Amino acid sequence: MFKKSLLLFLLISFTASPVYAASPTVESLELSVNLVWLMFGAVLVFFMHAGFAMVESGFTRSKNTLNILMKNFLTISIAAILFFIVGYGIMFGTSGGSFIGIDGFMLSGVEDIGFFVFQAMFVATCATIMSGAVAERIKLGSYVFIVVAITAFIYPVVGHWIWQGDGWMSTLGFSDFAGSTVVHLTGAVAAFMVVLILGPRIGKYKGNKVNVIQGHSIPLGALGVFILWLGWFGFNGGSTLAADPALVPMVIGTTLLSTSASLCASALYTKLRFKKVDASLSMNGVLGGLVGITAGAAEITLGGALIVGFISGILLVEGIRFLDTKLRVDDPVGAIAVHGICGIWGTLAIGLFSTSTGLFYGNGFSQLGIQAIGVVAVISWVALSVGGFTYMLNKFSPIRVSRDEEIAGLDFTEHGSNAYHFKDNLLDENTEIPTRSFGLADRLNQNIPFETASKQSS
Amino acid sequence: MFKKSLLLFLLISFTASPVYAASPTVESLELSVNLVWLMFGAVLVFFMHAGFAMVESGFTRSKNTLNILMKNFLTISIAAILFFIVGYGIMFGTSGGSFIGIDGFMLSGVEDIGFFVFQAMFVATCATIMSGAVAERIKLGSYVFIVVAITAFIYPVVGHWIWQGDGWMSTLGFSDFAGSTVVHLTGAVAAFMVVLILGPRIGKYKGNKVNVIQGHSIPLGALGVFILWLGWFGFNGGSTLAADPALVPMVIGTTLLSTSASLCASALYTKLRFKKVDASLSMNGVLGGLVGITAGAAEITLGGALIVGFISGILLVEGIRFLDTKLRVDDPVGAIAVHGICGIWGTLAIGLFSTSTGLFYGNGFSQLGIQAIGVVAVISWVALSVGGFTYMLNKFSPIRVSRDEEIAGLDFTEHGSNAYHFKDNLLDENTEIPTRSFGLADRLNQNIPFETASKQSS
Amino acid sequence: MFKKSLLLFLLISFTASPVYAASPTVESLELSVNLVWLMFGAVLVFFMHAGFAMVESGFTRSKNTLNILMKNFLTISIAAILFFIVGYGIMFGTSGGSFIGIDGFMLSGVEDIGFFVFQAMFVATCATIMSGAVAERIKLGSYVFIVVAITAFIYPVVGHWIWQGDGWMSTLGFSDFAGSTVVHLTGAVAAFMVVLILGPRIGKYKGNKVNVIQGHSIPLGALGVFILWLGWFGFNGGSTLAADPALVPMVIGTTLLSTSASLCASALYTKLRFKKVDASLSMNGVLGGLVGITAGAAEITLGGALIVGFISGILLVEGIRFLDTKLRVDDPVGAIAVHGICGIWGTLAIGLFSTSTGLFYGNGFSQLGIQAIGVVAVISWVALSVGGFTYMLNKFSPIRVSRDEEIAGLDFTEHGSNAYHFKDNLLDENTEIPTRSFGLADRLNQNIPFETASKQSS
Repeated sequence: MFKKSLLLFLLISFTASPVYAASPTVESLELSVNLVWLMFGAVLVFFMHAGFAMVESGFTRSKNTLNILMKNFLTISIAAILFFIVGYGIMFGTSGGSFIGIDGFMLSGVEDIGFFVFQAMFVATCATIMSGAVAERIKLGSYVFIVVAITAFIYPVVGHWIWQGDGWMSTLGFSDFAGSTVVHLTGAVAAFMVVLILGPRIGKYKGNKVNVIQGHSIPLGALGVFILWLGWFGFNGGSTLAADPALVPMVIGTTLLSTSASLCASALYTKLRFKKVDASLSMNGVLGGLVGITAGAAEITLGGALIVGFISGILLVEGIRFLDTKLRVDDPVGAIAVHGICGIWGTLAIGLFSTSTGLFYGNGFSQLGIQAIGVVAVISWVALSVGGFTYMLNKFSPIRVSRDEEIAGLDFTEHGSNAYHFKDNLLDENTEIPTRSFGLADRLNQNIPFETASKQSS
Repeated sequence: MFKKSLLLFLLISFTASPVYAASPTVESLELSVNLVWLMFGAVLVFFMHAGFAMVESGFTRSKNTLNILMKNFLTISIAAILFFIVGYGIMFGTSGGSFIGIDGFMLSGVEDIGFFVFQAMFVATCATIMSGAVAERIKLGSYVFIVVAITAFIYPVVGHWIWQGDGWMSTLGFSDFAGSTVVHLTGAVAAFMVVLILGPRIGKYKGNKVNVIQGHSIPLGALGVFILWLGWFGFNGGSTLAADPALVPMVIGTTLLSTSASLCASALYTKLRFKKVDASLSMNGVLGGLVGITAGAAEITLGGALIVGFISGILLVEGIRFLDTKLRVDDPVGAIAVHGICGIWGTLAIGLFSTSTGLFYGNGFSQLGIQAIGVVAVISWVALSVGGFTYMLNKFSPIRVSRDEEIAGLDFTEHGSNAYHFKDNLLDENTEIPTRSFGLADRLNQNIPFETASKQSS
Repeated sequence: MFKKSLLLFLLISFTASPVYAASPTVESLELSVNLVWLMFGAVLVFFMHAGFAMVESGFTRSKNTLNILMKNFLTISIAAILFFIVGYGIMFGTSGGSFIGIDGFMLSGVEDIGFFVFQAMFVATCATIMSGAVAERIKLGSYVFIVVAITAFIYPVVGHWIWQGDGWMSTLGFSDFAGSTVVHLTGAVAAFMVVLILGPRIGKYKGNKVNVIQGHSIPLGALGVFILWLGWFGFNGGSTLAADPALVPMVIGTTLLSTSASLCASALYTKLRFKKVDASLSMNGVLGGLVGITAGAAEITLGGALIVGFISGILLVEGIRFLDTKLRVDDPVGAIAVHGICGIWGTLAIGLFSTSTGLFYGNGFSQLGIQAIGVVAVISWVALSVGGFTYMLNKFSPIRVSRDEEIAGLDFTEHGSNAYHFKDNLLDENTEIPTRSFGLADRLNQNIPFETASKQSS
C-alpha cells in the first residue's frame, strides 16, 4: 500500500521550469511581482503560528506548555498536508451545487501553486484558534482528530461557500475579504463547541466564584501578540492576491489603524471599568482589532477602520467577561471572544462601513442583511459539524484527560517532561540525574518537584 | 460629537480600486514593484516594536514587565493614530516657512497611502526609544501624555525640517538617509530630558556607589536585539522608497557590515577593558552599529560601513559608562547612548565617509559642518520642547510614581498583576486562588510572595 | 597601519546610483523584482540566526545562556565581515583549478552586491550549526578561532566546488539547490570534529548510563524552531535567485510539506517508540525536514517532498539516539543529526526523487552516484580541515574550559554575569547590591545563589 501511494505521489509532479526569464515581458513581470507579494504574505501568515504558539503558551500554566507547543506544531503540519491532499479540492475545486468542491484533490489539474501555498497557510490558523480555548485539559490524540476534521473538511466547505466564486454565499454577495468569518468565526465556533463538551478546567469555577487562572509568562504572550500583528499584515495584505498599488496600502493602513484603535480602546476601557489598565485584556484587544478589520480591510476607509477597531476593543473586553463569568465557558486564552465576537462584528461592519455597499454610505440595509445571513449560516454549519463530530468522538473515547492527569499537567502525562528546568545548574560528576520514569502518583504526591521531573529515558 | 467625528471620518474615504491589472504597463509595474518593497520595509519596521518591547522587558526587572509591554503596545498604537490625524500633515504637508507642514491632516489630499504607512511605522520608533530609558518609575498616564506630544508634534516637526523637501535643514543640504537624527537622536534627547526630570531609580546611586540593577531575562533582550536588527533592514532598506537594484543591496550591505563590526568592537573592547566579554554591552553594540549607519547607509561604502560600525561599538560602551557613572543619568536599557551618542556619530560620519560629500573623499569640511549644525538644531528643539512640556506636566501632576509604588513594582500598582506565575502548577479543586485585591502595604510587607500576587478580580 | 587599511576600504567604493527609475524598462523592472525577492530571502535567512540563538539557548542549561547568545551574535558578525574580505572571493571568484576562487576579495570587481548580501547571510548559518553542538564547554576564544577558519576558508571552498559554475562538483553534475550539503553537512561535520576533540559534558556519561541533561526553556527553543522554519522559506525560496512564478511557489510548497511531514513523522515515531510524543525530538524533526528538502526543493514534487520529509523525521530521531547513546557523541541540541544525517539524506534524495534525474523517475543510478561522491568529498574535506585545525588549536591552547569553570557555568566565567535575575524584585534603598566580583571558588561553594551572582563592576 505504501508503494502504491508512493507511485501516486510521484505521478503528480510539478516540476520546476528552468526556462524562466529568457526574455521578460510585461505579462511575465506582472506574474513575478504578484508572486513576490503573495509569497511575502504567505510567509507572514506562516509566522502567525509562532504567534499563536507563544500567546497560547504564555497565557496558560507552565505545566501544560510543551503540550500547547506541540499542538501548534502539529496543527500547521497536519493542516498543510491535508489541504494538499483533500482540502484545496473541497475549497477551490469545481463547485458541486455551490456547496462543495469536487476536484483538484492532491492539486491534480491545479496550475497556480502559489495560490495553494498562500491558502495552505490560512487553514491551520482556523484550527489553531481552537487549540488555545481547549488548552490544559484535552487529550492530544483527541485534539488531533478534531484538527483533521476541521482542516480536511469543515473549514474547506466554509471556504468554498465564500471564497470560491460559485459558492452560494459568494453568489449571494457575501463579503469577507480576508476571513473574519471564513477563518476566525469558523475557528471560534469550533472552539466553543469543543469547550462545551470538554467543560471548564478544574478549579476554574467554585460555586459562585470565578477564579482567575493566570498565564505563566505574559512576556511570551506579548511577543506572540506582536508576531500575530506582524503576520496579519500578510494575512490581510496578501489577500489582495496582487501587488495593486492602490489597494495594498489601504489594506495595510486599515489593518494598522483598526488594531491601534482597538488596543487603545481596550486599555482605556479596562482602566475605566476596573481601575487598572489590564495587560492581558489589552493584548487581546490587539487581536480583536485585527479580527474586526479582516473582513472589511479592502472596502473600509482609514477613518472607518479606526471606528471598527475602537468598537472591537470594547466588544472584546465585554465579550471575554460575558463568556467567562456569565456563560461560564472556560477559554484560557480568550480565543472565542477574540475570533468569534470580533469576527461577527467585523463581518457585519462591512454592512455599515463599506464605501461601496455600507449603510453609512447611503446603501441601505441589504448588505448588512446578507452579512447576517452568512454569519448565521457559518455558525450553524460549524456548530453542527464540529459539535456532532466531537460528540461522537467523545462517546467513542473521552476527549478529556483524567482529573489526576490534569492536575499533574499535560506536559508530564502526554510528553513525560517539563518545559522549564532551572535547578540543575551546578551539575557535576556526582549529581544524580534520575533516569527512570516517575509515575503519576509520585508526581501528584509532590515527590517530584516540578522543575526536576524527568523526561522518560529508555 | 461622536456622530460628527464619525461623519468626518467617513467623508474622508480612500476606497479600493478594483480596476487594477486590466492591462499592466511598464509604469504600473514599476509602481507595483516599488510598492512591494516599501510594504516589505514597513512591515519590518513595524516588527521593530516587538524588538523594543523584548529589549526593554528583558533588560529591566520582572516587577515592571507588564508595564513595559503595555507601554510599547500603547506607543505604536497612539503614534499610528496621531500620525494619521495630525502628524503626517505636520511632517509632509505643504511647508509653512520651512518649519512646519500646514495641510494633509487626516491625509486629506494625500494620494500615496503606501508612503504614509511606511512613515507611520517610523513615528512610534522615536517615542519607544524613550520608554526604555524612563522604565521602572514613570507613571503610565504621564508616559502616554509625553508620547502624544512627541508623536503628534515634536517628531513631525523634526521630520519636516529634514525629510520634507522644503524643510530648512533639507534645503541646507543636511543628509540623514533613514533617520540617525530624525528618529534616533530625537528619541534619545527626549529620553534624556524626561530622565533628568524623573531622576534615577531607587537604589541606583548610593553615595559614591553606582549599583548595577540587572535585567531579569537577557534571552528576551537578545531576542529583541535580533528582531531589531532584522527590522532595521526594512528601516534602512525601505528608506530607498523604491526597489532600486543598485541602491538597495548597498544599503542592506552597509547595514549588515556596520552592525557586525560594531558587535565585534563592543565585545572586544569590553574584553580588553573589563576582562570579560560583557553580553549586555555587546548586544547594545549591535544597536549602536545600526544607529550609526542609519544616516549614511546609502552613501557610505561597504568598507566605510565597517569603520563607522567599529567606532560605534566602542563609542557605545564608553557612552553608556559615561552617562551611567559620570553624569549619573539612570537609563536602564542604555537607550540614550545607543540612539543619542551613536545617532550623533552616524550623522557626523556622513561628513567624513560619504563618497559624494565626505571629508575623506576630498570634499572638505562643508558637509561635516552642515551635519553638525543639524545635530545642534535638533538637540535644541527636542530638548526645549520635550523638556518644557515634561516640566509643565510634572508641575501639574508628578510624573513619577511614589516610593512605595516603585518598590512594589509598576506591574502591581498600574496593572494589578504580575508578568510571571510559576507557582500554582498543581492546582486542584481545593487550591485557594485569592480573589480580593491586595493592597500596596501587603505587597510591601511581603505578605504576597511575588509569584502569587493576584490580579484584581471584580 | 590603521590609516592604510582605512584607505584601502575607502578606495573600494560602491556608491549609490541616484539615476534609478528615470524611465523604467522591462529589463530594469526585471532586475527590480528579482532584487526584491532576493533581499526578502536574505533578510529571512538573517533572521534564522535569531532562531539558532533561541534553539541553542532553550535546549541548554541556564548557566550557559549568555555564552550561547554571544556566540550567535559573534558568529553572524564575524562571518559577514570575513565573507566580505575573503570568503566571497574564495567562493565565487574566478576558479583556480576548479578548487578555489582566486579573485573578488573585498568584492573588488564584483557588481552584484545583492548576491553578495544573500550569500553572506548563508555563511554564518554553517558556523552556527557547530555552536549548538559544542555548547556548555568550549572556550569563547577557541570557538571564535574555529568560526574564523570555517567562514573565511573551509566553507567558501565547499561553496566554490558546488555553487561556482566552474567548481569540480558543479562540473560533475552534483545537485544541491539551497545547501543540504554546502551549508548543513559542512556545518555538521565541523561540529562532529570539534565535539570529538572536546569530549562530552561533565555528567553526561557515567559508566553505562547516558544522562539526559535537559534544556532550560523549551518555549524559547520552540520559538527558535518556528523562526528557523520561517527563515527557511527565504533560505530555499531565495535560492531561486529570481522571482520565477513557476519555480518559487514549488520551492515554498515543497519546503512546507516536507517539514510538515517530518514533524508528524517524528511525533508519531516517538509516540510508538517511547510511548510519549517527545517534544524536543519532534521540534528537531521540524529542522530535520527542512534540512532534508533543502537540496531538492526545486526538483522534487510536492508529493515527493512529503516522502522525503517523512523519512527525515524518522531518520532524525534514530540519528540523535544513535549519536547520543551508541557513538556517545555529546551534542546538546542534536545539531549533528539534524544537519548531518538529514543533510546527507536530503542530498541523496535528489538521486531518487528528482523529476529530471532521479531513480524513481526512470533515470537510473547515475545522479545518485554523483550525489554520493559529493557527500563523501565534502565530509572528507571538512573533517580533515576542521579536525586538523582544531587539533592544532587544542595543542596550542586547550579549547575546553576547566572542570570548575564548566560546573560554574560559562556565563559566570566568560561573562561575569547570569542570564536571569528574578530575585531582587523588591529592591529599596537599603538593599545591598554586591559590587565586587565573586571568585570561582565562591560560586562553586554555592556562596552565591545562582540568581544573584553579580556582574563584575569596575
